[in-house]
Formats: sequence, C-alpha cells, structure tokens
Amino acid sequence: MSTTPPPTGPIPGFAAVVPAGGVGSRLWPLSRADRPKFLLDLLGEGRTLLQATLDRLEPLAENTLVVTGERHAAAVAAQLPSLGESGIVAEPSPRDSMAAIALAAAILERRHGPIVMGSFAADHVIRKQGAFDAAVREAAEVARTGKVVTIGISPTGPSEAFGYIESGDALAGADADANAGTAREVTAFEVVAFTEKPDAATAAAFLETGRYFWNAGMFVVRTDVLLGHLDRLQPTMASGVRAIAAAWDGPGRAGALATIWPTLTRIAIDHAIAEPVAAQGGVAVVPADLDWYDIGDFDSLAGLLPPRADGVTVLDRDQPTAVHGAPGAVVIGGNKAVVIIGIPDAVVVDSGDALLITTRAAAQDVRHASAAVEAASGFSAP
Amino acid sequence: MSTTPPPTGPIPGFAAVVPAGGVGSRLWPLSRADRPKFLLDLLGEGRTLLQATLDRLEPLAENTLVVTGERHAAAVAAQLPSLGESGIVAEPSPRDSMAAIALAAAILERRHGPIVMGSFAADHVIRKQGAFDAAVREAAEVARTGKVVTIGISPTGPSEAFGYIESGDALAGADADANAGTAREVTAFEVVAFTEKPDAATAAAFLETGRYFWNAGMFVVRTDVLLGHLDRLQPTMASGVRAIAAAWDGPGRAGALATIWPTLTRIAIDHAIAEPVAAQGGVAVVPADLDWYDIGDFDSLAGLLPPRADGVTVLDRDQPTAVHGAPGAVVIGGNKAVVIIGIPDAVVVDSGDALLITTRAAAQDVRHASAAVEAASGFSAP
Repeated sequence: MSTTPPPTGPIPGFAAVVPAGGVGSRLWPLSRADRPKFLLDLLGEGRTLLQATLDRLEPLAENTLVVTGERHAAAVAAQLPSLGESGIVAEPSPRDSMAAIALAAAILERRHGPIVMGSFAADHVIRKQGAFDAAVREAAEVARTGKVVTIGISPTGPSEAFGYIESGDALAGADADANAGTAREVTAFEVVAFTEKPDAATAAAFLETGRYFWNAGMFVVRTDVLLGHLDRLQPTMASGVRAIAAAWDGPGRAGALATIWPTLTRIAIDHAIAEPVAAQGGVAVVPADLDWYDIGDFDSLAGLLPPRADGVTVLDRDQPTAVHGAPGAVVIGGNKAVVIIGIPDAVVVDSGDALLITTRAAAQDVRHASAAVEAASGFSAP
Repeated sequence: MSTTPPPTGPIPGFAAVVPAGGVGSRLWPLSRADRPKFLLDLLGEGRTLLQATLDRLEPLAENTLVVTGERHAAAVAAQLPSLGESGIVAEPSPRDSMAAIALAAAILERRHGPIVMGSFAADHVIRKQGAFDAAVREAAEVARTGKVVTIGISPTGPSEAFGYIESGDALAGADADANAGTAREVTAFEVVAFTEKPDAATAAAFLETGRYFWNAGMFVVRTDVLLGHLDRLQPTMASGVRAIAAAWDGPGRAGALATIWPTLTRIAIDHAIAEPVAAQGGVAVVPADLDWYDIGDFDSLAGLLPPRADGVTVLDRDQPTAVHGAPGAVVIGGNKAVVIIGIPDAVVVDSGDALLITTRAAAQDVRHASAAVEAASGFSAP
C-alpha cells in the first residue's frame, strides 16, 4: 500500500463522452419520450442523472461531449449550461451506441488529435466518486497502451439484470508500469469475453469463479484505436463518421449529417467493437467497486431511497402518505394525500399528467404502460 | 290477479322522514366528514343519493322531513330547494336514529295530528320505483291498523352484510282488508324477530327457510303508535322530543334544542322500538323485491356500474384509463391518465384532494383511511 495521495486534476488528454439516449420506459410516467430518464432527478437529490454524470466526469476530463437526440438537445443544454454548443452532439435520428460514440471519437480527434476518451452512460448512479476517479485514471493509463478498456463493476450479487465481463490473466506489465507513474495498485485484466444477461444459476456460477464483473458499458480507449478497430470491423461507419466529423465544426455539418447519418448501421458498441476485439485479445477490464446502479424500474429506484420509519418509501411529496396493510409501499410525486390499503409493495407514481399504480413485483411490466395509454386513448402506436 | 291500474298520487295523510346521517367512511375519499355519502352522486347519474331518495318519495308523501346534522343542513337545503326550511330538521349533535325519527314524528304530529309516517335512509339505491311505491302503499295500509311496519328486502343471496327480518304468519286479515281498498295482492307477515348480521352459514340457512328478509331500516308507522311505544320503552326520550316539537315551529326551538337534545339517549330505532315491539307481536313486514342496494364500499359501488368491454369499471373520468394484468380494476375520478399494472381488482379513487389505492377485496378496510391520513398528517384524531 502506498501512502502517496491519489492524483487530482484532469487526466491529461482525456475526454469524456456521454451518450444520452434511452427513454427508460419502465419508469413511466416519470420518464416519457420527451422527458427521458437521464433528464430526471430520479433520486430527488437536486441533480438529474445527466447532471450527476457530468459532475462526476468534470474533475477528470479536459473535454466533454454529450451525444443526444435532436429533440433533447435543448433540454441537455439547459441542464448543462457550462457545456456550450461545442459540447453537444445532436443526432438527427437514433443509430444506436456505436454511431454515437464513433462520431464523438471522430470529432474529438479532429479537434484535439488522438486522445484517450471514456464513454459513460448518462443515466447511471455511482456513489463512490473516489473509486470511480481511480478506476477511470487507471483505465486511461491502460488505454494509452492501445487496449480497449472497460470498467467492470464488482458484482454485489448474482444479478440477472446485467451482462457480465469474463476476465482472464492480469494484464502483463500493467501493474509495474502504472505503479511507476501513479503509485497506485493496478488490477487490470485481459477480457476473455462479454456475456449476455445470464439466468440465475449461471449468474451464481459466474460469481463463484471470482472472474466475472458487471458490464456497465463504460469504455475507455484512444480515439485512434477505436476508429482503427472501426476501420477494420465497420468500415462504412468509420468513413461515415470521419466525414461527418470533418464537416462538424464548419458550415457543412448539417449537409453531412443529412446525407451520411441515416446510412450508418444501427449497432451497439458491444457488438461492433467490444465483443470482436475481446475475442482478439484487445480488451482489458479494470474492476471497480463503485456502488453503481442502473435504475431500471421503480423497484430498483425504491431500493436506493431510504424508507420512512413505517417502511413506506416516499419521494417528491409534501402531502400525507398513509398505508394500512401495505408494507413496502412506494409513493412518488403528487400533490394530494395518498392512502394505500391492502396492497403490499404497492407502487404509486404521480407525474402530474399521469398516474401509475403497480407493485414492486410487477415493476418490469411498466414498459407496457405507454402503449396501454395510447391504446386507451384511441391513438395507434407508431 | 287484478287488472285495476295501481293507485297513484300521494298516500293520504302520509309523511316521509329521511334521516340523513352517516359519513360512509368506507367510501373515503369521495365521502368525508363534511361531504357524507348521502350528498354524493355515487353512481354518476346526475342525482345525489339524497336527491334520488326524495325523488322516490315525492310521488308518495304529502309531507317530507329530512333530519340531518347542523353542519350539513345548508348542503341539504341546496340539494333540495323545494324542501323549504320547514322540511329540514337540523340536529345540534348526533343522537342516533331513534332520537332523529322520534323528533320527526313529534313534529309531524304537532303539525298534522296523528298520521302515518315512513322512515327511509337517505343513502340507499332502489331501482324498482313501481315495486317501492306498491310496498310503501301497502305498508301504510298495514300501519293504519296500529302495527310498526318494516319493508323487508327479498334477499338475492346469503349476504353477511345485512341484518335479517324473520317473518312468521301472514298478517291476519291484511289481505282482505287491503284488497278491499286497493285491489292489490297483500303479502304482509308478522315479524318474529330482527337478527344481527349473520355469518355465511347462518345466512344460507335463513334463505332456505324462505322466511327471512334483509332489514333495510325502512319503517312505516303511525306517529301516535311510534310515540306511544316510545312513551312506554323510552319515556325520557318521548317526553323530550315532544317538548322540542312543541317549541319547534315557534321562538323556543333553539332553547329547547339546547337544553333537551343533549340529554336524549343515543340508541338506534332497531333496539329502541323494532326489536322489543316485535317480541310483543307489534311489528309486521311487507316483503318487496326493490333491486335495493346499500352502497357500503367501493366493491359494492363497482358492482352497480357497468364495466367497459375490457372489464375495467370507470366512473367520472375523461382521461384514458388503461390496465395491464389488472382485470376487474375500478377507477373513479381524476383528471389524468391512469395506468394500473399487475394488480387485479385494483381500486383507484381520486377525489381531487386525496387519492385512494386499494383492491376490491380490501374495500372494507377503507374505513381506516381517514384515520391513517390524520396520523400521517401529524394531526390527532378527535
């Protein structure tokens, strides 16, 4: 163990990329097509998930790009006034995460030359800022060697909700190299493979090995390495995003976007880069214990909020909330007294313009809510 | 069978008394201490339960008295503009049904001499006006002979929610007497006893005998007969209500109410008159098939409303109501879209200032709602 204090200040030549997409349909009616999850202060802490993500990255990054849909660009700019126009990449249409991250990489490289970038979801919760800082710094160090580096979350249980990263040998030389520069203990490993969400038995077996980490979609990589892999694996996309990036900071942006963007393949970075490059030995993982959460539904949201003495969890309410025969109830929002009787683990969410009534056990089925309202309204779903 | 048309027009010398009390605590938040059940249009038919009760009695009665609490007198007057000041008896405090009905009887007798009166709850639903008319006319005929007459509801099932009236022999001479005057078939019986709400097995055994009827609290009796029984069974109350009635239509009303009313025994008419007089052979029952309902809770309310094609029951709403995995749901009120997911038979009631979430199975427990809100508000219940 070293007694040297951890490094502070931005990581030299490091840029943060934050793809901000995804409605969060299981959080309806808080989340909506025009008010996606990342724009919400889900935990009632005074900062939206997007703002908290940027707060976390600000001490680490010299530059930040938020990639979001055109319809959300104004809301993103309003929530992040210090970001500026140059910090927002507005997509004309959703083309999945590879196009978003690749365009950001190409723009960053045009602006700054080859640098190390890290891509971080806009709607995750991380409680341990210090551990996050250390993991990103280490991942950036490893990324400088040419690896695609993912930050793997140390599992707290055999969750079926996440994909897993299977690690192999400790990264050769990483420990010595990194310690020479930073005086920190380094624990990066080769990545053997990425796995899909497992069933419970498989997840339990994963944990027993001690070699599996949750995949939180955090990738740290040199822009030239990322675009190099893309040249090889998705050459049309590579040339497309390079062409858009070349026009980005000039008068040709709109034209390039209009002609090229719609032609880009819709593919996730996991499938386009992470999985094939891992199979070739090009991916490393930095394990981290971040107290990390992907708030997928109201059950997981409630799990992050402290219940009252009576076991009821209340968020964003001033009026009385009372229960009888409803232990574990969750009540969010609304400007009137709420009484729940005889429904254990009830979930009641009042967004002002819509009301959801469900249970924590049925929280996953909330994904059907938006379509159900459209059907009940006589509108046809698109 | 007679082909003579049924009689029409008011029953000569007949007055209707409508005790309007009872909050209906299982219908919270629609019903409140300051907005009791009888003042509500629970079925969304455009008339409150009180108005519908008066609509039903208007064709039959020459006079009508509504007995209600002082705090509700203004609301009653507003809902029943034709009733007039003389038609409302405002109680300074609740003294249970015997005092209310006895005071009404004494006032009626002071105004009109001994007449036949019928007492009918303000918050019941009766769908068959014709059968009700015939039953009241027949009960009034029988009452003229000196009996206390109750209208017994023909049971539609072995309900545990109601008290039962046990009938005995057909009333001697009633058939012939009544037919001579009205050309109707008469089916009045002696009452053997009134019973408390039975358990399911007892209720089923009651129905098998064919001699039991539901007690809907409808009593028809001559004022002098009622007050005579009271003189004997509750002499202090009898003299008290006679004294108040003597002062009622003059300057002494307030003083008499202030000094006498608080001294009156709190007792229900069932215990004060119906049960002891039945034991002495003085009570008769006129059975009637009225399509009668006492809407006690949201389960019974929902049972009276036609569900939509998807099995969801909706009342007093314009906005979309959608369910997923929630067959039999009931949604009442509210000005926003409601989605219910994974709670079969859910009950959602939005009164504007409060929201109730429960299930049809837990509807009886709604009686705890008001106290639960007070506790959650930090108020202490009175």
